[in-house]
Amino acid sequence: MFKAKVLVKRRPSILDPQGMAVEKGAKHLGFNNIKETRIGKYVEFIVDTEIRSSAEKEVTEYCDKLLINPNLEDYEYTLEEIL
Amino acid sequence: MFKAKVLVKRRPSILDPQGMAVEKGAKHLGFNNIKETRIGKYVEFIVDTEIRSSAEKEVTEYCDKLLINPNLEDYEYTLEEIL
Repeated sequence: MFKAKVLVKRRPSILDPQGMAVEKGAKHLGFNNIKETRIGKYVEFIVDTEIRSSAEKEVTEYCDKLLINPNLEDYEYTLEEIL
Repeated sequence: MFKAKVLVKRRPSILDPQGMAVEKGAKHLGFNNIKETRIGKYVEFIVDTEIRSSAEKEVTEYCDKLLINPNLEDYEYTLEEIL
């Protein structure tokens, strides 16, 4: 079995309204050093197979078909074997 | 300046309806090895100070006051100096 950890980020060229809104709230609360807040997703799951290559294939397909919006987002992942 | 990277996860004891919904979609598409999908947030931002201890303080306050729901979520972060 493998544990997959996926970081999903909006592409640098794509505006992040959620990040901007949170940062505006921060400014009102007096956080003046916080800049360029970008909010993405962090997804964890188990891939129940013993073969790393097929786990990798499953992770990328899961990301491409369900977790990621390929027009707006990039992702990176790690796969860690668990016993 | 520091770059902060924050991972926000729902506590293990808290249900994750979003993760369950995505995983149900995965099952319909034939992904039978994907289990225990949990969806959290990944937040990046710049802290514009030269002092690591005050950057750390600012990150934890920003998380506690704006980024995190302390009833449902835990977080961990890294701070990386950028020149």
